Amino acid sequence: MDKDRLSKQMQFIKEIDKAKEVYRQTVLMDASRRENDAEHSWHIAIMAMLLGEYVDDKDMDFCRVIKMVLVHDLVEIYAGDTFCYDEKAGLDKSEREIRSARKLFGMLPEDQCDEFMELWREFEERSTPEARFGAALDRLQPLYHNYMTKGYTWREHDVDYSKVIERNKYIKDSSEVLWEYAQRMIDDSVEKGYLKHEGK
Amino acid sequence: MDKDRLSKQMQFIKEIDKAKEVYRQTVLMDASRRENDAEHSWHIAIMAMLLGEYVDDKDMDFCRVIKMVLVHDLVEIYAGDTFCYDEKAGLDKSEREIRSARKLFGMLPEDQCDEFMELWREFEERSTPEARFGAALDRLQPLYHNYMTKGYTWREHDVDYSKVIERNKYIKDSSEVLWEYAQRMIDDSVEKGYLKHEGK
Repeated sequence: MDKDRLSKQMQFIKEIDKAKEVYRQTVLMDASRRENDAEHSWHIAIMAMLLGEYVDDKDMDFCRVIKMVLVHDLVEIYAGDTFCYDEKAGLDKSEREIRSARKLFGMLPEDQCDEFMELWREFEERSTPEARFGAALDRLQPLYHNYMTKGYTWREHDVDYSKVIERNKYIKDSSEVLWEYAQRMIDDSVEKGYLKHEGK
Repeated sequence: MDKDRLSKQMQFIKEIDKAKEVYRQTVLMDASRRENDAEHSWHIAIMAMLLGEYVDDKDMDFCRVIKMVLVHDLVEIYAGDTFCYDEKAGLDKSEREIRSARKLFGMLPEDQCDEFMELWREFEERSTPEARFGAALDRLQPLYHNYMTKGYTWREHDVDYSKVIERNKYIKDSSEVLWEYAQRMIDDSVEKGYLKHEGK
């Protein structure tokens, strides 16, 4: 057994514990507090287990989707969570996250570093059906949380309808059914006053 | 599209948000607070991605392990977390958890209810190599947290060496290498005074 290899893996496992303290803008369904990256990633991994039947591209490796969503936010351990509607912070997000990915995944043995880097890049680039499904879930989950908490984060940050559509339209690239479901939540949010819509 | 089916799945996805508020005895690596079931499940799912090479049984479906650990603690949403060294609470744990599994997984469409029930049962029974690996990770992770926090939970609950060995020996049923690693952490914990050992 290669003790150095196992030691690197265990160091990485210790380091990623920090994802439990990277807090997102999304609040829990009962609005009691913000959720963190570890909780969010777990939640969308289970969504990936349940909602695969609605993906338009039928040639999918669902296991890869699950792995991808489990690791997709790890880079935020060093780069921090960038609020999706914060345009200024979004400008250098990519650069910050690449540096973070190199530093974090570089703790692993080379083959696993490559594997994690590849999963993260694929997710970011939305270049495969698997990544597009992962990205759809990554949008659908906070949208659902916002809907269930009467637009908690939208109201807090004064986000409007057009921004929410812009942010969530990627769901359509993976699944018409889930995009319809998302649109119904968005429309109902406008109707109920959870989300402002300048045109209305 | 079966709207009732999607609606059931989304209700379930909302309900399991509660796992983010089922707190365990284990504290985070920086000992700042207890971790919850969602965080714990995410953590061991990534461990399953990294440590598979050490499993003695080479004929394994790793994707099934990942799914299993993602759902293994969901029953605690209604049954609560039973501290592993609490013998009294352990007595009716199984009954409480079966009731909880039926109630929670029963929210899903029948085929997915069966799938989740099966994953949970298999994990509990440790009847397959996949379940034994999942169970090993479920022990190794809190042991590692205890080691890194100088025996935080052991000291809080006055747990001794023999109980820790008894609890963690199942790691050996999956992996000699990980069991050796676990034993080294336990022995070092006694050495450093994190864990009391009556015989020493």
